[in-house]
Amino acid sequence: MGDPSTTTRRGELTAEQSAALELLRRSSRCLLVGHMRPDGDCLGSQGALARGLLHLGKQVSIVNPDAPAAVYDHLGRGLAYGVFDGRLPEHDLAVLLDFNELSRTGPMAPLLERASSRKLVVDHHPYHGRPWWDASFVDVSASATGVLAWRVLRALEAPIDAAIASAVFTSLVTDTGWFRYSNTDAETLHLAADLIARGVEPAALYSGLFQRRPADEPLALAAVLARLEYFADGRLAVTDQPLGNGGAPPLEDGDPVLDLLRSVETVEVVLYLRELEPGQCKLSARSKGTYDVNALCRRFGGGGHVKASGATIAGTLDDVRRRVVGAALEGLAGHGGHAH
Amino acid sequence: MGDPSTTTRRGELTAEQSAALELLRRSSRCLLVGHMRPDGDCLGSQGALARGLLHLGKQVSIVNPDAPAAVYDHLGRGLAYGVFDGRLPEHDLAVLLDFNELSRTGPMAPLLERASSRKLVVDHHPYHGRPWWDASFVDVSASATGVLAWRVLRALEAPIDAAIASAVFTSLVTDTGWFRYSNTDAETLHLAADLIARGVEPAALYSGLFQRRPADEPLALAAVLARLEYFADGRLAVTDQPLGNGGAPPLEDGDPVLDLLRSVETVEVVLYLRELEPGQCKLSARSKGTYDVNALCRRFGGGGHVKASGATIAGTLDDVRRRVVGAALEGLAGHGGHAH
Repeated sequence: MGDPSTTTRRGELTAEQSAALELLRRSSRCLLVGHMRPDGDCLGSQGALARGLLHLGKQVSIVNPDAPAAVYDHLGRGLAYGVFDGRLPEHDLAVLLDFNELSRTGPMAPLLERASSRKLVVDHHPYHGRPWWDASFVDVSASATGVLAWRVLRALEAPIDAAIASAVFTSLVTDTGWFRYSNTDAETLHLAADLIARGVEPAALYSGLFQRRPADEPLALAAVLARLEYFADGRLAVTDQPLGNGGAPPLEDGDPVLDLLRSVETVEVVLYLRELEPGQCKLSARSKGTYDVNALCRRFGGGGHVKASGATIAGTLDDVRRRVVGAALEGLAGHGGHAH
Repeated sequence: MGDPSTTTRRGELTAEQSAALELLRRSSRCLLVGHMRPDGDCLGSQGALARGLLHLGKQVSIVNPDAPAAVYDHLGRGLAYGVFDGRLPEHDLAVLLDFNELSRTGPMAPLLERASSRKLVVDHHPYHGRPWWDASFVDVSASATGVLAWRVLRALEAPIDAAIASAVFTSLVTDTGWFRYSNTDAETLHLAADLIARGVEPAALYSGLFQRRPADEPLALAAVLARLEYFADGRLAVTDQPLGNGGAPPLEDGDPVLDLLRSVETVEVVLYLRELEPGQCKLSARSKGTYDVNALCRRFGGGGHVKASGATIAGTLDDVRRRVVGAALEGLAGHGGHAH
């Protein structure tokens, strides 16, 4: 039956993608660059591509504006994830992974712009400006940049080892919320299956990525959850974290709160406020259905996506909580309800 | 390339499996039976097989000892999941799905035993006794009984519709913990990919299965988490729910607590006690690594599996908590630590 890889399934490459591969083939010193606060898709794509290009005999370095979080340690076995120190290594090709605006590289942007190297963008995000790169390997229908790194490696006929498989799997599960989000398509799961056949152990990877929470998080979470209020027949869930978190440890990461409250059947919108300092609060807003939290957050000077947005708002916690609840309720009153 | 279904991939059927298919082909009135408190794998397998057999022109009824939980409502669109009312419908073949001991059907067992119908077991659990069935379609390496229902339908060349795809997907995600457990193999993910290509929407299914938690659960959870204590450098996490839950709503389902505490990096063992009535407590114990909570629970008259066990223990909550912590610490002292 041959190899059931995604490149085979998807068939033909575009002319632009073929040109991108040709540029990669011609380049011998590759610098792989990620975005600020690189996530698992960015880091996984870098790890997979770096290892594949090394197998093909090229010189490869990885440099990011920020260091990887500890949960991604497994990606770095035998591979250095460099952190920008004011200089770029010598390179003839810069491969920019999981972003399409140079500004996403923060302090690296001016140096990359001045560098004489060619620029290749490998990405799945939409871009509406004028192309500033020399070549691109882009597919906005791909669930993760890791899918594109995989297609590139297969097209270059790079040897695939277990570390590459693990890196691509890390990309996939990061950007699909472990195969739960609506971008989880057949290609993603066929690829994940191929990666398991190549040695990926999902349970070990899950534990390494998601079961490394800090020991004081459950107590921090308890304090934040205890401040929960519902509005609009349970369609709106609101909670917050005051400075000091009521004597509990601070909750550093809001995701567990947002996930738990989204899992409540009646809930359509979750608002979570954290008091950053006296008089300044950070709002995180999530929508389960069609309610647009981006529109809500824009009213407070923030923004993001329809289903996930945020804002930093001046005011006391109680005052800000009252204002955002009021604004959210206005929106809900004129809104049809659940998407499904 | 033909159809990438699992039956094709796996190749040959065993003689026993071929005989099982032959029995199904010959039967015209099929009764599909599940186990007590049927889970998503049992119900999904029943739904898929029932719809496929109906498409093949057979009479089909489903009867279980208990009604499906509300989260499985989607499986029953246009298909009746009957609940045992003291009688069995007329049938010439009983198909027993996701179990291999008649006792798992509770009050249905004596009637099934007396019935003159043939018995076909479709299951992935190990069985060490003497076969009591007429035929079986068993593979203990399958991640879910739904995988076997799928193989049966493909071998029978049953028409596959979106409802069947959704039912099989429900089976897969139930028994693999949404593709996180170590039984998630390449076949499972290739099959999941095929099911998506046939119309399954993972995000909608995830929401329907896992985002239907009760509105008072977060407050109940907050109260239980606030009673958390760690022992043995954070390797052991212990919490409980007294009667009345300290004024918060009762926490009916322990899974969210157990999941949250297992996600803490240092934690190897989680103990969660619920006071059922004065003087009686229920222990739920979970292990992340190799620590055997079955051995622990057996000391208190309970049992289960190495990684998930329970016991009902007489005594006040404080007394029971002290005793189980003591016993767990003895075990941890002589135990090597993390599995990975």
